[in-house]
Amino acid sequence: MFNNAAILGVGLLGASFSLALKKHGLCGNVCGYGRSRANLERAKEMGIIDSFAADPSDACSDADLVLLAAPVGSFAELVKRASSSLKNGAVVTDVGSVKGRLVYDLEDSVPSGVHFVGAHPIAGSDRSGITYADPELFRDALCIITPSHRTEPAALKAVMAVWNSFGSKVMTMDPDQHDRVYAAVSHLPHIIAYAMVNAVSDIDRSFFSYCGQGFRDMTRIAASSPEIWTDISLLNRENIREMIAVFRENLDRMDAHLKASDAEALKKHFVRASSSRKRIGQD
Amino acid sequence: MFNNAAILGVGLLGASFSLALKKHGLCGNVCGYGRSRANLERAKEMGIIDSFAADPSDACSDADLVLLAAPVGSFAELVKRASSSLKNGAVVTDVGSVKGRLVYDLEDSVPSGVHFVGAHPIAGSDRSGITYADPELFRDALCIITPSHRTEPAALKAVMAVWNSFGSKVMTMDPDQHDRVYAAVSHLPHIIAYAMVNAVSDIDRSFFSYCGQGFRDMTRIAASSPEIWTDISLLNRENIREMIAVFRENLDRMDAHLKASDAEALKKHFVRASSSRKRIGQD
Repeated sequence: MFNNAAILGVGLLGASFSLALKKHGLCGNVCGYGRSRANLERAKEMGIIDSFAADPSDACSDADLVLLAAPVGSFAELVKRASSSLKNGAVVTDVGSVKGRLVYDLEDSVPSGVHFVGAHPIAGSDRSGITYADPELFRDALCIITPSHRTEPAALKAVMAVWNSFGSKVMTMDPDQHDRVYAAVSHLPHIIAYAMVNAVSDIDRSFFSYCGQGFRDMTRIAASSPEIWTDISLLNRENIREMIAVFRENLDRMDAHLKASDAEALKKHFVRASSSRKRIGQD
Repeated sequence: MFNNAAILGVGLLGASFSLALKKHGLCGNVCGYGRSRANLERAKEMGIIDSFAADPSDACSDADLVLLAAPVGSFAELVKRASSSLKNGAVVTDVGSVKGRLVYDLEDSVPSGVHFVGAHPIAGSDRSGITYADPELFRDALCIITPSHRTEPAALKAVMAVWNSFGSKVMTMDPDQHDRVYAAVSHLPHIIAYAMVNAVSDIDRSFFSYCGQGFRDMTRIAASSPEIWTDISLLNRENIREMIAVFRENLDRMDAHLKASDAEALKKHFVRASSSRKRIGQD
């Protein structure tokens, strides 16, 4: 499908993507680029990438497919640095958690004849790094592709075919709508989990040793990479702040019912949440 | 160890306690009481209880051990109704998530010669009901026993021996301290998970279908029983409201950093939360 791919950012997602490309025979040679030479050397030893380059433009010079898999805040700079060497007809895609304006900016910054197609596999976790890389990471996971009116149809088709080959459930969504949806179901939950853990720290750090499975599950995402989540939070900050406001209204309502010892009103909120959550299912 | 036990409230915890008593040979006969006759009949068919009674006082008339395992808001009433039939020397204990003043109140309301010892196994989940009853539910789980200065030493020893037999990690804690600790690491997280799910409902219910594992893990406890959690929330409302205030300060700080696009300040909060959460471990 592709002769050469370049993975810019060889972490959990970039490495898993590379392994999946190889497993499904979609690409001959994969060249990696990243900030840590030690990590690139290890990725090569582990058979995740075939070679690596000291510069994004060197990594991309032969690539038919370029994957942006570093923290989203660095995408613009990576494309800028790779730009001069991008081949005519190359497809640039990504695994970033933010789309919206970033998609339009990247479309603007790739050279004419190079096609950007945004993608967001819903397969991240609190884990990061190539140690957990897995060619099956994306199987059965949602992958949201975010074409715009400028997206080249053949490039879109190629990117969708890659994710379909990986066994993902592929959907398309408008880039701006994507950012609203994921502000609500992913970015806000991360902010809240971080705030929850810090609140317990503020109260008494020794309390952590008494926590049960509920607290562990609820705060698992607070172990996620601070660097990745700082980038995501800032790039999607307007949507996230809107969601924080809606969340805060809900919390304030419950707090008011607690203050008033209003059992019936409180229970109504719990019933509503419980039935919504049960409809999502357990896994 | 005991000839007869009474389980007042045959749900997930009461049924699992009964099965564990039987499995470890700690009790001859277990009599159940609960609001739903159909549930009691099913519990008897499943071998969870040996018999059941239509009234708490009938259930307790022969009991050496009485377990309060209904929603905590009903404990006072249950003890009042059972009081006249409680045997001299009987031990009354519970599996409730709130202690504090409730412990002192129950100590006051059991007849002279009957001993109350509070206990809180950290083994609940979003599941409820006897379908999930399991004699091994409490193995390796924390169980917090909350003696007061009035607790009878032999009764305390007997209750601790029961939980040790079940394979729990048994600890003692002051009843008021218990309520502060669990307001922070259990009650607040439940309130937040309920508010999180309702916030997404308010924004757009269709967004639920795009959620990933992070959202599922984070909101799993929002599927918990509204009845149980209304009782817990109101009984421990002062501590919970204090924790909500600390949480809100943390959320507001992050929101301010988002507003100011202050990457460094935001990242500091994320780093602090991430390292705290990593120290707790993953399971």
